Amino acid sequence: MNACFNVVPFVSVDNMMKLVIATGVQRFILELAQFIEADLRRWMEFERSARTASHSEGGVIELMPTSDGDLYSFKFVNGHPGNARSGRQTVTAFGVLADVRSGYPILLSEMTILTALRTAATSAIAASRLAPANATCMALIGNGAQAEFQALAFKALLGVTHLRLFDIDRAASLKCVRNLDGFSFEVTVCGSIEECLLGASLITTITADKRQATVLTDNLVGDGVHINAVGGDCPGKTELHADILKRSNIFVEFAPQTRVEGECQQLPPDHPVTELWRVLVGDAPGRTRDRQITIFDSVGFAIEDFSALRYVRQRLQVMPFFEELDLLADPDDPRDLFGMVLRASKQATTT
Amino acid sequence: MNACFNVVPFVSVDNMMKLVIATGVQRFILELAQFIEADLRRWMEFERSARTASHSEGGVIELMPTSDGDLYSFKFVNGHPGNARSGRQTVTAFGVLADVRSGYPILLSEMTILTALRTAATSAIAASRLAPANATCMALIGNGAQAEFQALAFKALLGVTHLRLFDIDRAASLKCVRNLDGFSFEVTVCGSIEECLLGASLITTITADKRQATVLTDNLVGDGVHINAVGGDCPGKTELHADILKRSNIFVEFAPQTRVEGECQQLPPDHPVTELWRVLVGDAPGRTRDRQITIFDSVGFAIEDFSALRYVRQRLQVMPFFEELDLLADPDDPRDLFGMVLRASKQATTT
Repeated sequence: MNACFNVVPFVSVDNMMKLVIATGVQRFILELAQFIEADLRRWMEFERSARTASHSEGGVIELMPTSDGDLYSFKFVNGHPGNARSGRQTVTAFGVLADVRSGYPILLSEMTILTALRTAATSAIAASRLAPANATCMALIGNGAQAEFQALAFKALLGVTHLRLFDIDRAASLKCVRNLDGFSFEVTVCGSIEECLLGASLITTITADKRQATVLTDNLVGDGVHINAVGGDCPGKTELHADILKRSNIFVEFAPQTRVEGECQQLPPDHPVTELWRVLVGDAPGRTRDRQITIFDSVGFAIEDFSALRYVRQRLQVMPFFEELDLLADPDDPRDLFGMVLRASKQATTT
Repeated sequence: MNACFNVVPFVSVDNMMKLVIATGVQRFILELAQFIEADLRRWMEFERSARTASHSEGGVIELMPTSDGDLYSFKFVNGHPGNARSGRQTVTAFGVLADVRSGYPILLSEMTILTALRTAATSAIAASRLAPANATCMALIGNGAQAEFQALAFKALLGVTHLRLFDIDRAASLKCVRNLDGFSFEVTVCGSIEECLLGASLITTITADKRQATVLTDNLVGDGVHINAVGGDCPGKTELHADILKRSNIFVEFAPQTRVEGECQQLPPDHPVTELWRVLVGDAPGRTRDRQITIFDSVGFAIEDFSALRYVRQRLQVMPFFEELDLLADPDDPRDLFGMVLRASKQATTT
């Protein structure tokens, strides 16, 4: 057997949890955000394409590839809003990092947890440039699987201390309260969206419904807030009324993808939007006025997954929470693939 | 933990070899060919798109997704002609089968070996409709990692008994001779392409060079043969002189992909080609005349991988050569992803 080209490190769900815990969830999010920001700042070095989506009645399966010419990554991710009814996750994911020079995978990782972390980290990066000054109170509308990650990212990057929670199912809000106990938030569970928005200069919408649902109507949103719109992420799935979009400045990850999948799908295709990376490199302004409404229309982009896998790979060097997976056939002589099968046969016979 | 939604069966390289051997390589190829043909015959039920390719100086990394609305599959595959110099495979692959209703992966498998098997099975399916009558002698030009699989597929589906081998490196031919010992072929190792073609009515070209290499020139190819052109499979990589193509009938898997990647890239974009599935369902003729030259311009298509994963999944039900992979986070309450991480933390602290 050759020098272990064939063995690919694999981070299971169990090992990902151990890695996050051993690192510390706040530190994990902070460092992950640094990796994401560093990669977004070198935007032009990446291959960028809208994800490949396979739509069906119940949801969507997507592949999200990118490469910076040195490393290649892709993520497999599904979105099935009805999954909760059968006890499954709405979104599950895994991903692969590969070496561009050889084409060989060098990391396979669960990405259900990692996607929640990178989505939250990206939201907080955007808010760090777009939120009004001294924004410490966040309304969190939709208290499902992603909610706590968003809260912790906004605490880590922006110093958010107050959370106002709303979910159509109060049990989801109470789950958040329990899970966030010990993270020094002041938390208020609210009975309506109106109540939830009181005093919040940050608004995160992260509901799971696959409908043209209007979580936020125009009259609810006052001037000067930053809206972190995370839940709208496929055609037909939006959370904000179009009128809010029209009086806001909209920031996106990758415009061609967001115009199809994000809140922007409600707007004409030439409506101005600003890609976040331009703000990060100083090419475009973020927030310019106190009374301005800013929206980060987040749908998730492949580069964020690339950064997340790159960060995990670095963490594994100090915290080896991985298994070794026999994923790649690698005979002694590369041309002798069939001979390798034959020899396995003989071994099986003689042992 | 829920009813094991989170556990994905994984077929390692070692288990794939065991599965092929325990099934019998000839039977494996025959049954795999039946699965591929059955799926190609229901062509219109599938999502079809050219693969997503990430090209670099050293090669290409591709994702090949498809779905029939019931199952979804994708393959990750690289092609790096220079890999052999560092002791690596030119082509390595792995793939995933997922349930469209939930979006959950239901199988992860090595596909380096499986790709060699499905490529050979597909070539033999095409030849079974296109080869001249009583074609029992095959010239095999390029005796690398794929060669033996092609030989065995043509034996299993067409009854090929004579092989004429040529490779620019004679050691590769001798490796084939050793590996095929015991499979009842009559094998001749040849010193030139001209010699290799003598008496062969089937010609398989499967070299690995990424250049506009001309393995077969026009004057070498007599009337009435069937050419199984497997080695040309990306832009800039072809094996046949364009003049051969012009006096032949060309059959392809998926025309939009083959016109970019296959031998066809040398022809005008409107040059007539026939998709193989049309021949299989009786929509288009295969071979119609004795003196006709037929070419199967094979580049590999996602449906073949779909079929291969579907076949492996069926085999695993009687031969459980797989491990269980903890790939998908699946908390008791789907909305409580963060709670699952927290509880793992407490377990880690208390044990």
